[in-house]
Amino acid sequence: MTTPLQEEKVFKDPVHKYIYVQDQTIWDLINTKEFQRLRRIRQLGTCFLTFHGAEHSRFSHSLGVYEVTRKIISQFERNKYEDWPREERLLCLCASLLHDVGHGPFSHSIEKTFGTHHEEWSCRIVLGDTEVNRVLRRVSPTFPQQVAGVIAKTYNQEIVVSLVSSQLDADRMDYLLRDAYFTGVNYGTFDLERILRVMRPYQGHIVVKESGMHAVEDYLMSRYQMYWQVYFHPVTRSAEVLLHNIFQRAKHLHEEGFAFRFLLHPLPNLFRQKMTVHDHFLMDEAFMQTVLMQWSFEEDPVLSDLCIRFLQRRLLKYVTLEKIDARQIEGLRDQMRSFGIDPDYYLDIDFPSDLSYDVYRPGEQDEKLPILLLDSRDTLTEISRKSEIVRSISGIHMGKYHLYYPRELLLNHADKLDKNLRKLLDL
Amino acid sequence: MTTPLQEEKVFKDPVHKYIYVQDQTIWDLINTKEFQRLRRIRQLGTCFLTFHGAEHSRFSHSLGVYEVTRKIISQFERNKYEDWPREERLLCLCASLLHDVGHGPFSHSIEKTFGTHHEEWSCRIVLGDTEVNRVLRRVSPTFPQQVAGVIAKTYNQEIVVSLVSSQLDADRMDYLLRDAYFTGVNYGTFDLERILRVMRPYQGHIVVKESGMHAVEDYLMSRYQMYWQVYFHPVTRSAEVLLHNIFQRAKHLHEEGFAFRFLLHPLPNLFRQKMTVHDHFLMDEAFMQTVLMQWSFEEDPVLSDLCIRFLQRRLLKYVTLEKIDARQIEGLRDQMRSFGIDPDYYLDIDFPSDLSYDVYRPGEQDEKLPILLLDSRDTLTEISRKSEIVRSISGIHMGKYHLYYPRELLLNHADKLDKNLRKLLDL
Amino acid sequence: MTTPLQEEKVFKDPVHKYIYVQDQTIWDLINTKEFQRLRRIRQLGTCFLTFHGAEHSRFSHSLGVYEVTRKIISQFERNKYEDWPREERLLCLCASLLHDVGHGPFSHSIEKTFGTHHEEWSCRIVLGDTEVNRVLRRVSPTFPQQVAGVIAKTYNQEIVVSLVSSQLDADRMDYLLRDAYFTGVNYGTFDLERILRVMRPYQGHIVVKESGMHAVEDYLMSRYQMYWQVYFHPVTRSAEVLLHNIFQRAKHLHEEGFAFRFLLHPLPNLFRQKMTVHDHFLMDEAFMQTVLMQWSFEEDPVLSDLCIRFLQRRLLKYVTLEKIDARQIEGLRDQMRSFGIDPDYYLDIDFPSDLSYDVYRPGEQDEKLPILLLDSRDTLTEISRKSEIVRSISGIHMGKYHLYYPRELLLNHADKLDKNLRKLLDL
Amino acid sequence: MTTPLQEEKVFKDPVHKYIYVQDQTIWDLINTKEFQRLRRIRQLGTCFLTFHGAEHSRFSHSLGVYEVTRKIISQFERNKYEDWPREERLLCLCASLLHDVGHGPFSHSIEKTFGTHHEEWSCRIVLGDTEVNRVLRRVSPTFPQQVAGVIAKTYNQEIVVSLVSSQLDADRMDYLLRDAYFTGVNYGTFDLERILRVMRPYQGHIVVKESGMHAVEDYLMSRYQMYWQVYFHPVTRSAEVLLHNIFQRAKHLHEEGFAFRFLLHPLPNLFRQKMTVHDHFLMDEAFMQTVLMQWSFEEDPVLSDLCIRFLQRRLLKYVTLEKIDARQIEGLRDQMRSFGIDPDYYLDIDFPSDLSYDVYRPGEQDEKLPILLLDSRDTLTEISRKSEIVRSISGIHMGKYHLYYPRELLLNHADKLDKNLRKLLDL
Repeated sequence: MTTPLQEEKVFKDPVHKYIYVQDQTIWDLINTKEFQRLRRIRQLGTCFLTFHGAEHSRFSHSLGVYEVTRKIISQFERNKYEDWPREERLLCLCASLLHDVGHGPFSHSIEKTFGTHHEEWSCRIVLGDTEVNRVLRRVSPTFPQQVAGVIAKTYNQEIVVSLVSSQLDADRMDYLLRDAYFTGVNYGTFDLERILRVMRPYQGHIVVKESGMHAVEDYLMSRYQMYWQVYFHPVTRSAEVLLHNIFQRAKHLHEEGFAFRFLLHPLPNLFRQKMTVHDHFLMDEAFMQTVLMQWSFEEDPVLSDLCIRFLQRRLLKYVTLEKIDARQIEGLRDQMRSFGIDPDYYLDIDFPSDLSYDVYRPGEQDEKLPILLLDSRDTLTEISRKSEIVRSISGIHMGKYHLYYPRELLLNHADKLDKNLRKLLDL
Repeated sequence: MTTPLQEEKVFKDPVHKYIYVQDQTIWDLINTKEFQRLRRIRQLGTCFLTFHGAEHSRFSHSLGVYEVTRKIISQFERNKYEDWPREERLLCLCASLLHDVGHGPFSHSIEKTFGTHHEEWSCRIVLGDTEVNRVLRRVSPTFPQQVAGVIAKTYNQEIVVSLVSSQLDADRMDYLLRDAYFTGVNYGTFDLERILRVMRPYQGHIVVKESGMHAVEDYLMSRYQMYWQVYFHPVTRSAEVLLHNIFQRAKHLHEEGFAFRFLLHPLPNLFRQKMTVHDHFLMDEAFMQTVLMQWSFEEDPVLSDLCIRFLQRRLLKYVTLEKIDARQIEGLRDQMRSFGIDPDYYLDIDFPSDLSYDVYRPGEQDEKLPILLLDSRDTLTEISRKSEIVRSISGIHMGKYHLYYPRELLLNHADKLDKNLRKLLDL
Repeated sequence: MTTPLQEEKVFKDPVHKYIYVQDQTIWDLINTKEFQRLRRIRQLGTCFLTFHGAEHSRFSHSLGVYEVTRKIISQFERNKYEDWPREERLLCLCASLLHDVGHGPFSHSIEKTFGTHHEEWSCRIVLGDTEVNRVLRRVSPTFPQQVAGVIAKTYNQEIVVSLVSSQLDADRMDYLLRDAYFTGVNYGTFDLERILRVMRPYQGHIVVKESGMHAVEDYLMSRYQMYWQVYFHPVTRSAEVLLHNIFQRAKHLHEEGFAFRFLLHPLPNLFRQKMTVHDHFLMDEAFMQTVLMQWSFEEDPVLSDLCIRFLQRRLLKYVTLEKIDARQIEGLRDQMRSFGIDPDYYLDIDFPSDLSYDVYRPGEQDEKLPILLLDSRDTLTEISRKSEIVRSISGIHMGKYHLYYPRELLLNHADKLDKNLRKLLDL
Repeated sequence: MTTPLQEEKVFKDPVHKYIYVQDQTIWDLINTKEFQRLRRIRQLGTCFLTFHGAEHSRFSHSLGVYEVTRKIISQFERNKYEDWPREERLLCLCASLLHDVGHGPFSHSIEKTFGTHHEEWSCRIVLGDTEVNRVLRRVSPTFPQQVAGVIAKTYNQEIVVSLVSSQLDADRMDYLLRDAYFTGVNYGTFDLERILRVMRPYQGHIVVKESGMHAVEDYLMSRYQMYWQVYFHPVTRSAEVLLHNIFQRAKHLHEEGFAFRFLLHPLPNLFRQKMTVHDHFLMDEAFMQTVLMQWSFEEDPVLSDLCIRFLQRRLLKYVTLEKIDARQIEGLRDQMRSFGIDPDYYLDIDFPSDLSYDVYRPGEQDEKLPILLLDSRDTLTEISRKSEIVRSISGIHMGKYHLYYPRELLLNHADKLDKNLRKLLDL
């Protein structure tokens, strides 16, 4: 059971103005060491190298997701909607707050290299020997399982899962507004208050009144813009490429028995993919940045150089490719080797749509729950069947290929390169 | 000599919308490793523990100060003011950009414990064997000296110094707006565009047209509010107290020959107060947070506990004291010792006005250059002589004393404490 | 009795985002012809001639005052404060909505010339044979009397009166934010949400928790700035002077039996000070602007010229006087007569503090209910006794004198004027 | 020839912060009586009855269009683009400022009833015996002709015309931002500064750098949203229907020789479609609202009732029709006649796309100049060929039909109506 707090607690928040905490359980969760750790993980990974304002943490975002969920539920309760299962309130709030608690530093690159997954870690923290687990168990012995179920999307009430994870969930609503605020772009702003007003619970789903269609279009357009302008920004991707290659190199060196000068616990466990929940706790972004700094003094010239590049923002340059000419790339790789530049670490092709972010794509596999419109005759229709705008966005699943390469290194060998390639690579 | 960039570079900034870079020298300075390091130092130290949005870096702020200076100068040039020494433009821009380059992690606590000073470090970086120095020397061999002179306020042109450091300087104008934006409070907002429009160079000073007096009042009121609401916030101060005590303890242990499990270079140099410019470069906030995390596993229970408290935001509680009752405090210290709680690390009195921030106080020693109003008869008057508002703010130099104490530790011994003390400490 | 609306009605509002109507009575009042008439009265009279954005109506403002009151009460109810008399809710809401319903076009000038008063008219409308009265009587036969009592500040519950009319009332909170929004100045913005959070009912008063003192200081500073920057702006005052003189002239002509070409009903009743409630309804700002346009074709050259000046914004120029030199002014009046320029209509001295607006001045006669701080020991203290800032604002009751004069007319006679006067008047 | 102003004039503007006037000609134009008259014409006609904040005038908007044009040109000059014809600067600024000077009160309804056109009137004012014309002639004898040419889109330099009138012109950029600001919706906001940065003159066109495509998409989406949410709002349209019917009725009565109690000059000229430039000057929105008020007392019950409805916002109700069932409507018309309700004035079908506003539709007749993207190979492409989003918006030219009807009048006769009709009309 949860008990209401004697006095409401309030956090000042730039996006929602204030965040209100009314339950002892929520307050206790916020004060666990695992949740406080999110202060040391940036929300947008390497994006701060493109937009210097994007230095906000997953701590802020997690509070924001909680607050949006709280607002939605409070609207449902105020309007006394019958299809809203009131007893699920605390579960929704806890799952909202905790859904990102498993994120590690620079998640995308680390997950790609070491095959971990942050949602899995969130569940491990919820279920393991942690302060978070102890707080949740105070509600009921099975409560941690329920929270983990919502995070893992296996909980048997769709309406609960969809608040935290769907095409129109509290997670996205917060991150679009928050990332727009901190980067300073104004594409991500949409009218949250209006969206909340048109949402309602209906037969086990969260649906949107048809009159709110244009408001949802506006929200989806914000999302579309944020993906292209912020999340897929090639400079951010270039920094991700660098990080990925750093971890690849370090893993490779470790496997080869390289004598690292700096190999603080739990790095060996990370390399062996044998991290415990406690190891995970230790490995925040401050730790990882310190590792990069220390590795910049390692004797392996590749590892050292890549780390220096990341810390000093000497990123790989990029060109946009309409299509990949595989033979040309292969030729370039060979030539780089002959110049003494290892293409495995200095040349990369990136296609932004294989990110963990996704645009709105109903019908594709792995899709999130779609947005349903409820009309005056109580019929439900998936939004893209009514909105040409949404249809046109859903169609746009083709990103652009980018080739990342070390321009200043190649400059020294430019005379050996083919004329077309030189033009392409601006050498 | 500087050369204009072929194509203007632009940074997206949430506060100024865009930051424009037009000179090769500025662009090169931004790309030095010493300047990029500022990304790893938070602008507001421990304030993020009070306002979770306050996670912005000194990198953002330094760009902002540069941009405000650029706007002021550009206004002076557009209006063709004769009293503006056009040849000083690049010097002003470089000094604006670099004035904070010497900041270390959690500057206030570290400076207090180890007697360093960030302005001194800024000068050492400008003058030492650094990338910054090499870029500046390309302008002219004496240029680093000039930049250091402006930062140290010894440069012989007051008008240049006052742009970077006075009661109405680019530094403050940016930090008030920026800190207000990121914390989410709206006290710090004032009409920057209007302030810029009423500033002008006059006989070696930067002055304000008398008609702009109310605009300056508004700016000073924002400052006053930000000090009370944000910079002097007792929760932020509580975290500073903790940090200070951590460093005190570690220094003490080091002097006593304690065998640290974790004592990465350059910590020993920090303890011995023998840091080099290279050591300074290594010691960013990621490093220091990693140190705190590692020290939380040291065997010394005081050091370990204080570090855990900081990382998990288990801060000391506080009460506001109208005045200090020295005897009462001394008694408490003695009793704490008898409970086995070392008061040197768990009890502290803080008076926020001894911060490195200052409110507007003309006439006190160490004051910054005052704000002068220029009336239609070309007479200069210090603003507090004309404005009652400013006069009333200038008078308010009395902060409030706060006593910080470990409430949950004392609770176990509450029965041994005097009734008045128990009431005071909410035990 | 009021009944809740089946479905909440919502107005989109730029200041409060949304305005929520939940009671049938409020909805019906908004739809009366007397309330709809407020759409045809500008909130800030002649201020649009200084700040072109200030074209918003008293309709918007009245809805805003209602909404702020609704928010305050809703906070009181949510927190279950015992000192809040719940049965007064509807009365507070109706009085908030209607307190300005008696405003006429360009109220200040008209009231000054014809001795009317808008609060009196608000009461007449509430009590007279009007749609408003009929809606109120449906609540209870004595309800109109109660509403009028609150507007006239004679109602016997101070707490109700003070919501609508005190130093910290819903009226001011809305108009500061709204006027700041529409003029585009950002001095008037303060943190409404925070102020609401620190207000509470206490022993028949609305008081402020002491911890909210700085928030109230910020609100009072906004007010101070708005008075100087917007409400006392000499260009706005110059237009008021013009209007006042137009009405003076027309009244004088009417008394002298001048044959107006255009004298639509109810103008004669206005001149005779015998307006009925129906006459008042007819006389909106569209009407008055049409009158000014038509009078610009009257044969009386003074009336015609003054009207043309107003419509085409050819205002009188002004100089600021530190103090009035009565003899000098008298001399100027005489000389103007000798030039054929009637000083009664073309020369004016204005001292902005005799406006119907007032700054915060506890202790002066006619003062509004002061702001009381409630400390942790349940003691009430008037805010200026605790805040130096508020004290300094309260002291500033001295406006500046402005002399308004027809510069371009005097230019033709400049050679006959004294040298000092020419300098003063910029001739 | 124009001369620069000695001192720049500045208007405070909520949308652009400040509006800067640097030329004597612009300053003089703003001070003409014809331009000042725009203060008495609302920018959005009847929209204030839906969004109460929408009370801003065409005066504000016209200044805003001027300012956007000034900013565009200033960017072109700063970047020294060779394809920009510098000598056209003043012409662009004047045409921007004056393009709406011919607007009358509630333009859409009046233009529809009396067959006038505001652009034609703008040209008549520019070319006629007006203060505007006199100011323009001071630049050169042919300058008024040039300005009129730009407004009429016949001027021979496309680049000049397109700044004022194209799919991406200063007019739209200002009105989207301004209407969004004053209504309080946030759909209309887009990043003006970014759009300006990607525009450039190229071979006689204004084009957009391809990298700016997403910024333009964002702008076009704002426009799309504003059309659906604001400009096509059925409540606004309902008020337009009412106004149109009022004018129809009055015209009809006038033709029939009805003895109006109130028929102030220039109403007869309006009825006869013989308005002079001077008549046009007299007929502002204050005048027209006074006419509506006076006509509410005319003896013709239809005219009187319609006017009362407008003034008291008792609008016709509406239903959305997927498609028109002509026979059903005809039947309703007949029945209304039998009830004594004239369907010519109380029943209307409206299809919002026949407004004077238009969404982006390249390829349709009467289209405005399209938006061209300039890629790195200097190829121009119309934007909808590259952007799926734009393509999808361009396709949406189908508005929705609305049937407007007097619900409360029909309620009395509901029993005589067909069951389906009753359901449709909510009777």
